[in-house]
Amino acid sequence: MSQKPSLPKGMRDFGPMQMARRNYIINSIKSVFEKFGFMPLETPAMENLSTLTGKYGDEGDQLLFKVLNSGDFLSKTSANDFENGSKSMLPKISEKGLKYDLTVPFARYVVMNQHDITFPFKRFQIQPVWRADRPQKGRYREFYQCDADVVGTDSLICEAEIILMINEVFDHLGFEDYTIKINHRGILSGIAEVIGAQGKESDLFVAIDKLDKIGLDKVCDELIERGIPADAVEKLKPILTISGSVQVVINNLSGLLGNTEAGKKGINDLSEIFSHVKSLGLENSNTAVDVTLARGLSYYTGAIFEVKINNVSIGSVSGGGRYDDLTGVFGLSGTSGVGFSFGIDRLYDCLEELNLFKENTQTFSQVLIVHFDEDSMNYGLSVLSELRSNGIKSEIYPDQTKLKKQFSYADKKNIPYTITIGSEEIKSGKLALKDLHSGNQESLSVDEIISKLKGA
Amino acid sequence: MSQKPSLPKGMRDFGPMQMARRNYIINSIKSVFEKFGFMPLETPAMENLSTLTGKYGDEGDQLLFKVLNSGDFLSKTSANDFENGSKSMLPKISEKGLKYDLTVPFARYVVMNQHDITFPFKRFQIQPVWRADRPQKGRYREFYQCDADVVGTDSLICEAEIILMINEVFDHLGFEDYTIKINHRGILSGIAEVIGAQGKESDLFVAIDKLDKIGLDKVCDELIERGIPADAVEKLKPILTISGSVQVVINNLSGLLGNTEAGKKGINDLSEIFSHVKSLGLENSNTAVDVTLARGLSYYTGAIFEVKINNVSIGSVSGGGRYDDLTGVFGLSGTSGVGFSFGIDRLYDCLEELNLFKENTQTFSQVLIVHFDEDSMNYGLSVLSELRSNGIKSEIYPDQTKLKKQFSYADKKNIPYTITIGSEEIKSGKLALKDLHSGNQESLSVDEIISKLKGA
Repeated sequence: MSQKPSLPKGMRDFGPMQMARRNYIINSIKSVFEKFGFMPLETPAMENLSTLTGKYGDEGDQLLFKVLNSGDFLSKTSANDFENGSKSMLPKISEKGLKYDLTVPFARYVVMNQHDITFPFKRFQIQPVWRADRPQKGRYREFYQCDADVVGTDSLICEAEIILMINEVFDHLGFEDYTIKINHRGILSGIAEVIGAQGKESDLFVAIDKLDKIGLDKVCDELIERGIPADAVEKLKPILTISGSVQVVINNLSGLLGNTEAGKKGINDLSEIFSHVKSLGLENSNTAVDVTLARGLSYYTGAIFEVKINNVSIGSVSGGGRYDDLTGVFGLSGTSGVGFSFGIDRLYDCLEELNLFKENTQTFSQVLIVHFDEDSMNYGLSVLSELRSNGIKSEIYPDQTKLKKQFSYADKKNIPYTITIGSEEIKSGKLALKDLHSGNQESLSVDEIISKLKGA
Repeated sequence: MSQKPSLPKGMRDFGPMQMARRNYIINSIKSVFEKFGFMPLETPAMENLSTLTGKYGDEGDQLLFKVLNSGDFLSKTSANDFENGSKSMLPKISEKGLKYDLTVPFARYVVMNQHDITFPFKRFQIQPVWRADRPQKGRYREFYQCDADVVGTDSLICEAEIILMINEVFDHLGFEDYTIKINHRGILSGIAEVIGAQGKESDLFVAIDKLDKIGLDKVCDELIERGIPADAVEKLKPILTISGSVQVVINNLSGLLGNTEAGKKGINDLSEIFSHVKSLGLENSNTAVDVTLARGLSYYTGAIFEVKINNVSIGSVSGGGRYDDLTGVFGLSGTSGVGFSFGIDRLYDCLEELNLFKENTQTFSQVLIVHFDEDSMNYGLSVLSELRSNGIKSEIYPDQTKLKKQFSYADKKNIPYTITIGSEEIKSGKLALKDLHSGNQESLSVDEIISKLKGA
């Protein structure tokens, strides 16, 4: 009995067309990372559970995929463990898990290789991660992360270069209307201090982060509900509504938060970052200081980034920030770094929604050789050899069959040209090159075809 | 308490230098696959265990990594299951496993997408697979496979193109002395028939496959031990010692096996393959017909390939063959195909052993900007911006520190050039470009540096 195969839920195949488009995105990002001096790293799919557990909160621990020990996995268990349930059994039958993100394995790598690494260490990493989340539209159980980090320096040039890299990637992909939002942990702390909400920071930050979505009134309602005093909320309002160019916002914040130590640090850092951005030659950086941006506050200690493509119904496509202690949990403290990542799936969806994929991102072979009979097929093989030695991606239909079937193959595979060969063509040395898009056909020698296709 | 992190056994990190070298190998292979019209495919790390189990024999089933069901994984189990042991528990607590090779997921993909795929379907796939094997030198629990297959045609042009692709990849990587061994299932069956060893095929094939390693005498001893009659072994000897060019071996085999149906089919197929190879313009194909090559006989039904780099102590680096029924197990029968794969880890080891990695496979940034003070650092940022907009991979040392430390960073990262900037350089506009390899230093304008580095 044969079985009807299926995919586990939340998992995807990437067929040729999707692969071509994904590779186009990934290669665009990679070439920018490399131009900025970042080096590639890959870590294994599996890590020891001791490396992963406790790094992502209780919910994260639940969402880790755990791998059963090999062989007789029950050998270390007792009836007691079984009766005590899954939580008690787990450590006896599973020692490894699939990686949940790229940051924790990176921290592990840095600690294990600290004596061989040259700091500051600039690495990028583009690999799948796995989360046992409930699958839904746009959320998968296997997805690629695409991270770049610099560790071992607190230079704000790194933050400036992140802004440049995002700009360069987005320009290359063809996005025009996007915003790189930037905030700073110090600015958030300064706000909490000046409005008198110290001790209530997390309630404050969770609420103001929603300004975008729910508007000022509802944010204020929520703040009150969360126990922020009404006078604090009143003081907050003018801060939340600051807007304008980066320089205007920074000047405003200086006046409002300049007396708090944290606020001053945040403002100075942002000023320095933008001064570096300017030195690096970027005038219009699509950047906005957004004091309501409050993501990743359990680890970000300095600048915080988030990028949105405007006029597209998709959340943030990139984000990051500076952290003071990436590797402390593995015994190496004081490693400051800054990193960011691109969401490949979301960038894909944005490019699709805005119709920005170029036609040639889905072209594989440039030409198919079509033949009437055995002689013309054999002749076609020698033509194929000449095309390929000139670097032209090309193929021959491998079976002797009707022309119609051969043309339909070219059409379905999105191959733009065909070369038809029959006895006439062999005699004259002039082959029929057809442009399947326009329908135009020309009689050309192999050399003429090669120079035409190389120019195409 | 911080923990000392470690990697699960059999797992590896690939640091920047290894990544650069691996990418060099993978990109060489990929560009050849694409030139020959193969299209990329990726399948998820996890498959349903029902897809994987029973496809690799009992030993393979043991070596599958199984993933625990999420949440309360014991919920479907009873005390009875627990008492009956691991084998009884497994199906209740695990439904998914990590992929063991790329072939079974490919077959699953073809069946699931049979109505959307244009046949013949040429796909390549370069992804990690996982096996719970005992780790040892050169054997890992996570390793990349790199497969290319054509399904939906029995045209022998495909076999010929495999020989061409192997040649092109190896030429590109710089291997000179290698042998593409080819045999055919029909030839093996013909041999069994003419020597009178029918019904003892697997004993026969297992033994003769060892000729390379243990020599003719020991192969004959083993054949006798395995119950092959002495007169059959005598008849076999002249067949096993056939040698010479492809044409000579084929002629010899014609005389010896031409009366058996299977043998004739094998000989005709090989002749046709070599005729196609010639039409495709390849004269010296490094190919040898080897009648003792007997791998993958549980699935290969036609041509069989294996490639060895000569004078290197590493086994085969590539192999493949034709199969008649890739997808029958998933309910789609009669899909003939032919495929082969490269062993990335083994190619890496061969390139290293033969010292064939080019220096530039481990170069990341081409130039580092070194600075004396804040002014020169800021000036350096503008220089950096010009270098990068000319496509030059470059970086600036992000902190203000001693020159010695900055130069040591360039040296350790294998960056070939530095540009040193101080107040003199800012005034004159002539910057100090140093070639760290030769030690030569020149005073050049930014434009001069750019044209020099672009030419380098």
